[in-house]
Amino acid sequence: MESFFKVKKPEEVLALLQRFNPCGEEEALLDLAFGRVLSRDVVSPEDLPGFSRSTMDGYAVRAKDTFGASEGLPALFEVTGEVKMGQDSPGEVKQGQAMRIPTGGMLPHGADGVVMVEYCHTLDTETIEVTRAISPLENVIQPGDDIKKGTTVLRKGYRLRPQDIGVLAGLGVEQVKVFRKPRVVLISTGDEIVPAGDVPADGQVRDINRYTLEAFCSANGAIPEFLGICPDNFERLKGLVENGLESADAVWLSGGSSVGTRDLTLAVFETFEHFELLVHGISISPGKPTIIARSGEKPLVGLPGHVSSTLIVAEVFMTPLLDRLSGLAEEGELRKRRTSARLSRNIESKSGRADYIRVRLHKEGKEWVADPVFGKSGLISPLVEGHGLVKVDVNTEGLYEGDLVEVLLFNGGEV
Amino acid sequence: MESFFKVKKPEEVLALLQRFNPCGEEEALLDLAFGRVLSRDVVSPEDLPGFSRSTMDGYAVRAKDTFGASEGLPALFEVTGEVKMGQDSPGEVKQGQAMRIPTGGMLPHGADGVVMVEYCHTLDTETIEVTRAISPLENVIQPGDDIKKGTTVLRKGYRLRPQDIGVLAGLGVEQVKVFRKPRVVLISTGDEIVPAGDVPADGQVRDINRYTLEAFCSANGAIPEFLGICPDNFERLKGLVENGLESADAVWLSGGSSVGTRDLTLAVFETFEHFELLVHGISISPGKPTIIARSGEKPLVGLPGHVSSTLIVAEVFMTPLLDRLSGLAEEGELRKRRTSARLSRNIESKSGRADYIRVRLHKEGKEWVADPVFGKSGLISPLVEGHGLVKVDVNTEGLYEGDLVEVLLFNGGEV
Repeated sequence: MESFFKVKKPEEVLALLQRFNPCGEEEALLDLAFGRVLSRDVVSPEDLPGFSRSTMDGYAVRAKDTFGASEGLPALFEVTGEVKMGQDSPGEVKQGQAMRIPTGGMLPHGADGVVMVEYCHTLDTETIEVTRAISPLENVIQPGDDIKKGTTVLRKGYRLRPQDIGVLAGLGVEQVKVFRKPRVVLISTGDEIVPAGDVPADGQVRDINRYTLEAFCSANGAIPEFLGICPDNFERLKGLVENGLESADAVWLSGGSSVGTRDLTLAVFETFEHFELLVHGISISPGKPTIIARSGEKPLVGLPGHVSSTLIVAEVFMTPLLDRLSGLAEEGELRKRRTSARLSRNIESKSGRADYIRVRLHKEGKEWVADPVFGKSGLISPLVEGHGLVKVDVNTEGLYEGDLVEVLLFNGGEV
Repeated sequence: MESFFKVKKPEEVLALLQRFNPCGEEEALLDLAFGRVLSRDVVSPEDLPGFSRSTMDGYAVRAKDTFGASEGLPALFEVTGEVKMGQDSPGEVKQGQAMRIPTGGMLPHGADGVVMVEYCHTLDTETIEVTRAISPLENVIQPGDDIKKGTTVLRKGYRLRPQDIGVLAGLGVEQVKVFRKPRVVLISTGDEIVPAGDVPADGQVRDINRYTLEAFCSANGAIPEFLGICPDNFERLKGLVENGLESADAVWLSGGSSVGTRDLTLAVFETFEHFELLVHGISISPGKPTIIARSGEKPLVGLPGHVSSTLIVAEVFMTPLLDRLSGLAEEGELRKRRTSARLSRNIESKSGRADYIRVRLHKEGKEWVADPVFGKSGLISPLVEGHGLVKVDVNTEGLYEGDLVEVLLFNGGEV
């Protein structure tokens, strides 16, 4: 199989991932809607605000009654009452009249502006003088000034931030239609893998990928489900993948950087209905031995065994895959945390593949400096030491000390 | 009170926030440790890896037996067996011998290097020729190469990322000591506020801040608890704050941009034990009428009523406050998502205060362009339209079209 299949460039892989579709939709209460992705446009059912409000503490008046008023020639007003928060005004404001109003108070009938309290001087309990003219609508928000009824406030495919949930509350929308969070089944493969709680015998290693990928999924709005550690056995692996396809939206295997294990993963994937192989090898380092396929709508992914390769493939390719499954339409580029930094030393790279270099950042003056963290392949400590990744493009032979590079920051644990 | 208290500069406020201390510690299972903050250093209990492993598919040999080998003059080896994944090697490798080994396999006794399979040619079932010399330890990871026993792997105050959890699993650490997530009690105040589910009568508005701040807390690793909407009534507000102080690590009120409401908030705060007023007004716009105080160790915060002011104060000051309570020691600057952008038009600003301008980003070529989103104070739509904030410093009179500015991105909903 492998011989028929050409290793793909990163851009080709990213394009293929766009073939996947969002999971179904469900209803989310506003309390639990943070980070969820809208599955439909939200159209405002009403004007916001619903009434004219003052934006200042002051006096509501008819603006034209203030025209010409100044320090030297103040205008006199009869104070006829006070607007209370949360209540309709106690009456109408007529010519030469004023009503005390707090910030956020409802503008009384007749009034069309608010004079800030700083420009009003109390003469007696019923009279103030105003030392500054205001224009109509000054210090006032009108109905619909914020959001007009019928406006599309938020669009399908949009991930809800705190203020977006706030605006929904303001419009009286208590629950919204969102895409389901993708459920990702994780299976660790390899005869050498034992649970983290075990003491490994000679030749055995603990399951690092399970925990790394669980956290990665959580960080990207997916729900991980760990199905277990599977030895390199065709029937057992097939059984687990089958279970995974029944219950989840995607199945990710990790393990096996040896040729034998990779072949096994593919052989198992191929047995499933509506199988299509999309990617068998990516021209990146680390992470080349990655398999991306589908069974119908559901992605089947074979990730490399080394945790460093697996996490880099996850950051670069599984993030956009999860974005697709989550129904995310926009802002993807802004969502990932990036920073620019000055490279502290030369990096060589083989032409013909994209290299992802782990870097550690430190600040010099106002500028970030990126120090490459080197280490033999298969080590996890450079990932722990590193803050993010710098990509050396396929057609570049390297980067130079002093180059300004973009650093893709690792998921920092915003929970 | 207000007259005695000077409005503080943003830097002064940030410095005062450093007086708060982390919440207590608890134990977290590795499955649930993503995003948690370590309350103690983690020291490696063992070497990682625990044995010498091959990093390639190939043959384990004694390196010196390959010295001088080349395409023209291959070295012959007797194949004495095969290393299986997860098992000790089946025997010792002696002079002139080789043992087949997969990536990740345990190096057999006697061998000190691995020849990649590409440089090995099978002559018969028991013999290979090797066409390239290797140096000792080539394609091998030794015990402790990744992490040495006794090394401090992760430090107190560090927020766990996927790979950090992976390394803990690799070391057999199944649970870690972490700081408790801060519990933040939220109270919405104001006679005009009604629940999002209600139809507001004249003069009433729905509770936007509750949902915005709940999501903001979740986004920053805190646990929000909404205590309810409280009218502007001293005794009722005091009762709620009292409940909050009993159950939570911090109490945040929001509401009241009018002078009367602000005074009420402060009057209530002052009744609590070990009260200390830290901040009464910040020289920023929006967000000036902010109160930060403490009752013993617990922060008491009075946030402005307008959601736009509240969210900006939250982004700029409550993020570092929550970081302190969470025990976060490092990486704070990297954690917040920032990007640099070119300003699309001039922004004027009053000297003597820091302005936080909402901007919307779009891409022109490879560069982000920041368009200021203007709007009357008290609107939420500019926050929804905006992607982040640009700060105009206290001593700056404005920014110019074409200036390169740093944009603090709003929490994008990484869940």
